[in-house]
Amino acid sequence: MSDLEQRLASMEARLRRLEDEQEITKLILSYAPLVDSGCDQQVAGLWEEDGVYDVDEIFMRGHGQLSGMVRSSAHQAWISGGCAHFAGPPHITLDGDEATAVCYTLMIVNTPDGFTVRRATANRWELRRTPSGWRAARRTNRVLDGREESPDLLASHFPEAVRHRP
Amino acid sequence: MSDLEQRLASMEARLRRLEDEQEITKLILSYAPLVDSGCDQQVAGLWEEDGVYDVDEIFMRGHGQLSGMVRSSAHQAWISGGCAHFAGPPHITLDGDEATAVCYTLMIVNTPDGFTVRRATANRWELRRTPSGWRAARRTNRVLDGREESPDLLASHFPEAVRHRP
Amino acid sequence: MSDLEQRLASMEARLRRLEDEQEITKLILSYAPLVDSGCDQQVAGLWEEDGVYDVDEIFMRGHGQLSGMVRSSAHQAWISGGCAHFAGPPHITLDGDEATAVCYTLMIVNTPDGFTVRRATANRWELRRTPSGWRAARRTNRVLDGREESPDLLASHFPEAVRHRP
Repeated sequence: MSDLEQRLASMEARLRRLEDEQEITKLILSYAPLVDSGCDQQVAGLWEEDGVYDVDEIFMRGHGQLSGMVRSSAHQAWISGGCAHFAGPPHITLDGDEATAVCYTLMIVNTPDGFTVRRATANRWELRRTPSGWRAARRTNRVLDGREESPDLLASHFPEAVRHRP
Repeated sequence: MSDLEQRLASMEARLRRLEDEQEITKLILSYAPLVDSGCDQQVAGLWEEDGVYDVDEIFMRGHGQLSGMVRSSAHQAWISGGCAHFAGPPHITLDGDEATAVCYTLMIVNTPDGFTVRRATANRWELRRTPSGWRAARRTNRVLDGREESPDLLASHFPEAVRHRP
Repeated sequence: MSDLEQRLASMEARLRRLEDEQEITKLILSYAPLVDSGCDQQVAGLWEEDGVYDVDEIFMRGHGQLSGMVRSSAHQAWISGGCAHFAGPPHITLDGDEATAVCYTLMIVNTPDGFTVRRATANRWELRRTPSGWRAARRTNRVLDGREESPDLLASHFPEAVRHRP
């Protein structure tokens, strides 16, 4: 390969990595506005056809269960009462056609006493490049209420990280 | 056009798109630290000269009204009492010299009983490339307290999204 | 320098700037998941060997004090009780081998009465490129409870910004 060809190929690969992370960030950031407005099909479409969303309280697999959660009366009551599934920026680790991401979410709920933080949650996403773009293969959420699984989930994103055990 | 020229032009265009989104992200993320420190001129300067900031409680048009809001005794009382206009990461859709973005904000206020979430709000930005960089043409904020406008605003950023109507 | 060489060099420099900001963003976003899971060595490793973390309540210098804070019984109690050091997206200003960033953090704590916002804080990071990547030289946190230092810290990230003084 010529020097010029090497430089061009290297730049194209670097651009692709930046664009991949940008696309993954947008996928993750789409969840909140879509779920808080009850766009059931588009929420489901963030996952692969048989993708998994594993939350403390509920385990969903596949587009049918994901969109069903959005249409459920429980979820519709959050929307009609006022709710924000506020997401922080994801920390993404890209590995070719796969990626993982860690982020936090806050479920903010409107109540007669004003807005309250109902839950602060650790999120871990596993994603894959598909013919139609990046999709979630699995998303795992664990509430940060002191249960050990939640800090374990946060640390698992960083391969060399070791939790101090008091 | 030669093959080489095509590859170079394609990379330059991809770089520009990444830089455009980066610049827009910085513009949006500048709002909170500037408004929470009362930098009235710089807050106004995020908008075009006749730009609009349409909030539930107040409608502002142009640099004079925007900077006036920051100097108002109501806003200055937020600063002196302790306040964070906490913004989540924006989801940006770029279209040449125009762009839209959706994000969430939390107004966190210091009170005698500690910090409280005064408002969780859906934000939609419309932006334009100007000779001096990207500027906001219009920003629309709707509080997520159950009013229909707010989830409508969130969904409007995603052209194909359809809200489930129970 | 030939036209071609100039175009290539310009693109390589633009790519590097985008990658630098991406790496700095990841460094900053690593703090919360590492500290909320008690990964003491990895938290310290975000800073240079003699880096400073200056918080209202505590001043730390060097890896020993940083990792010691994570291992402290006070911090371990936050983890075992349930805690999120929720960070907003950073606004980064890059200047060659140095950079500064401003962002907000919310300390969300699980209590018998549910999750509460214990603190909303202004963060300013000073970072340096080192042989092993970007590291924090100094991070300054000031709680947004009305003290003047906090809006001053927010404004200091924007060289031309001027605070309105009522």
